[in-house]
Amino acid sequence: MNDFQFQNTTKVYFGKNQLSHLHEEVLKYGDKVLIAHGGDFIKNSPLYQNVMDELKSNNIQVFELGAVEPNPRHTTVNRGVAICKDNEIQTVLAIGGGSTIDCCKAIAATSLSDTNNIWDLVEGKVAWHDALAVIAIPTIASTGSEMDKSCVIANVEIGVKSGINGETIRPKAAFLDPTNTFSVPPLQTACGGFDIMAHLFDMNYFVNADKYPLQFHVVETLLKTVRQQLPIAIKEPENYEARATMLWAASWALNSFCTSGFQTQASLHALEQFSSTLDLTHGLGLAILTPKWMKYLLDRDSSVADDFARFGINVMDVEDGEDKVAVAYQAIDALQTFIKDELKLPVHLSELGIHELPIKEMIQKAMKGAKSLPRAYRELTKEDCEKIYQMCL
Amino acid sequence: MNDFQFQNTTKVYFGKNQLSHLHEEVLKYGDKVLIAHGGDFIKNSPLYQNVMDELKSNNIQVFELGAVEPNPRHTTVNRGVAICKDNEIQTVLAIGGGSTIDCCKAIAATSLSDTNNIWDLVEGKVAWHDALAVIAIPTIASTGSEMDKSCVIANVEIGVKSGINGETIRPKAAFLDPTNTFSVPPLQTACGGFDIMAHLFDMNYFVNADKYPLQFHVVETLLKTVRQQLPIAIKEPENYEARATMLWAASWALNSFCTSGFQTQASLHALEQFSSTLDLTHGLGLAILTPKWMKYLLDRDSSVADDFARFGINVMDVEDGEDKVAVAYQAIDALQTFIKDELKLPVHLSELGIHELPIKEMIQKAMKGAKSLPRAYRELTKEDCEKIYQMCL
Repeated sequence: MNDFQFQNTTKVYFGKNQLSHLHEEVLKYGDKVLIAHGGDFIKNSPLYQNVMDELKSNNIQVFELGAVEPNPRHTTVNRGVAICKDNEIQTVLAIGGGSTIDCCKAIAATSLSDTNNIWDLVEGKVAWHDALAVIAIPTIASTGSEMDKSCVIANVEIGVKSGINGETIRPKAAFLDPTNTFSVPPLQTACGGFDIMAHLFDMNYFVNADKYPLQFHVVETLLKTVRQQLPIAIKEPENYEARATMLWAASWALNSFCTSGFQTQASLHALEQFSSTLDLTHGLGLAILTPKWMKYLLDRDSSVADDFARFGINVMDVEDGEDKVAVAYQAIDALQTFIKDELKLPVHLSELGIHELPIKEMIQKAMKGAKSLPRAYRELTKEDCEKIYQMCL
Repeated sequence: MNDFQFQNTTKVYFGKNQLSHLHEEVLKYGDKVLIAHGGDFIKNSPLYQNVMDELKSNNIQVFELGAVEPNPRHTTVNRGVAICKDNEIQTVLAIGGGSTIDCCKAIAATSLSDTNNIWDLVEGKVAWHDALAVIAIPTIASTGSEMDKSCVIANVEIGVKSGINGETIRPKAAFLDPTNTFSVPPLQTACGGFDIMAHLFDMNYFVNADKYPLQFHVVETLLKTVRQQLPIAIKEPENYEARATMLWAASWALNSFCTSGFQTQASLHALEQFSSTLDLTHGLGLAILTPKWMKYLLDRDSSVADDFARFGINVMDVEDGEDKVAVAYQAIDALQTFIKDELKLPVHLSELGIHELPIKEMIQKAMKGAKSLPRAYRELTKEDCEKIYQMCL
């Protein structure tokens, strides 16, 4: 096991009746808060009204940033920075998914820096050390940004997604109420759930070395739990236990425990360029991609068979057998079937009417992320990327 | 899932080369530190010398409290309090097992209170809210006190073990170096390891309700991992991976994640009165007790069979079968055999020359802890306790 440092300071308020603690958390930092959200859907929700009531009845002054995009733009972050600086706001409160939370982290850091432009921080032109307090109220089980210390921002002017990370932008508090995810439609529930699985695959499961027992077993357990509970959350959107399990699993897939002592590899996240080039939902891109990537590797190198077979047996309930390569193929089939029949997601881009890809652009972006993945099974070449993308069509 | 709040702020430095960060952590609070330890064994260790060098070369003034007992006495705590108050010390550093860490937590809280006697805090006579900084360097994988916010202290004058708990006594930092546990002899390694298993049994595994998928699966995974790695640590004391896994598992068994959303029950910890009456090692007491408690329950109520059978199959590698009661008995046998053959621990008190028990005293103490265990399989009566204790002889 490699040496590592682990600390996760986020205070989690989990459950149906925790919102009354929100003012306590906000007032630790001051009495002015910026609320960021995606727009009308949140503004018309009871959650929004409850948050407003909770803040206003405690004499907290509320400012607002709406229309935060699914891949939050640096210009949106900068709008938030202007509001915070102009009004000397102390806390940024995200109500929404990972994008909204990421946007708030970026606003928080930039607001205490010497620039009004987040991109100066991303590019390292302006140093930053401190940040406003971030508080997160996630409304979907997905990225786990609510306990994590990084954010990803899109600069559409130059076509780049990048981010910053640091301890000071980790949310001080997160309010995880499973009932806030009841209204997430089946498609988004499935995409968010597969995003959780892909974090686990990439961070510490599909790796060709260093499988340290404790963390590796926990990752496998999280995968199996998501595999069992996600279809329930899709079929029964108001099943509290399933929604609660997904929400807590999302935080744990990304909050550093699972990767403690490991180098992560992120092959799948490097390859997933459907969201950056076709504006596909990230989790859907990962769902389409993952079984193809597995098949591509297994077709070329049977040394991955043991790992894929193990995944099949321990996560997908595939029956064990003498021939590990055969079991590994069954595991890939089982995953594809799970995505198609239980998550009700398309397994090929053609099902979405996409028959051609901006291959050059995708490969260029993928190769940036595919560099230096010391624990990936195979160092992906441009040719590898192209073939895997063609399999996705 | 019940509503819950979760936060664990301890900064963990894990691995062989982390001690150089110790002065950074100490100097956050001041330049005077009290080191507490058990005595000569630690003082003659390279670890002690390395800690001293690290502190002194950074101009940190070191005070010392030696001879902290395995069940730390309140008078020892009070000795530490006097040193801290007299010298305006800001940080208490534990080098040792759970007892030493617990002692430091008690010193830390009492030193910032209006009394010089920890027992005033335990009995609620003096209020306390703040504490000196606690830093822990555990030398055995066992209690997990290094990431936990409670401590247990013994008042031998009145024959009571009790404690305090609160966020301010949670260690600010913990240095977990697996090589510091290489010298732990097989017996203590086994007892510490079984203590970890018993935390998991009690907190959230052997419970007759509310098995929430995520946390329950993780607990089972931790149990299986300890079951696999503990015998390796016993047989190969310098096996880094096994020692590292045990050390990290100890922290995770008790750091609140596994119990998030649950009421714990602690039947085994209530029953384990061998350590308080016979001065037996706590982990050994738990190892002798656990299979007897399981058999006692199963003999009387086959509704526990499914849970015990599941434990057998998923943790102890017992083969599944139609007759769950039979599988459950096999699980108990497997656990007993594991304790005897792999942990090399006695399974009856008679093997230690103990043929009689202070039954009355034990029952009286057990009944105090056995009250209000809403999720225990059976509300234990005095008669139950007596019969279980007799089975242990």
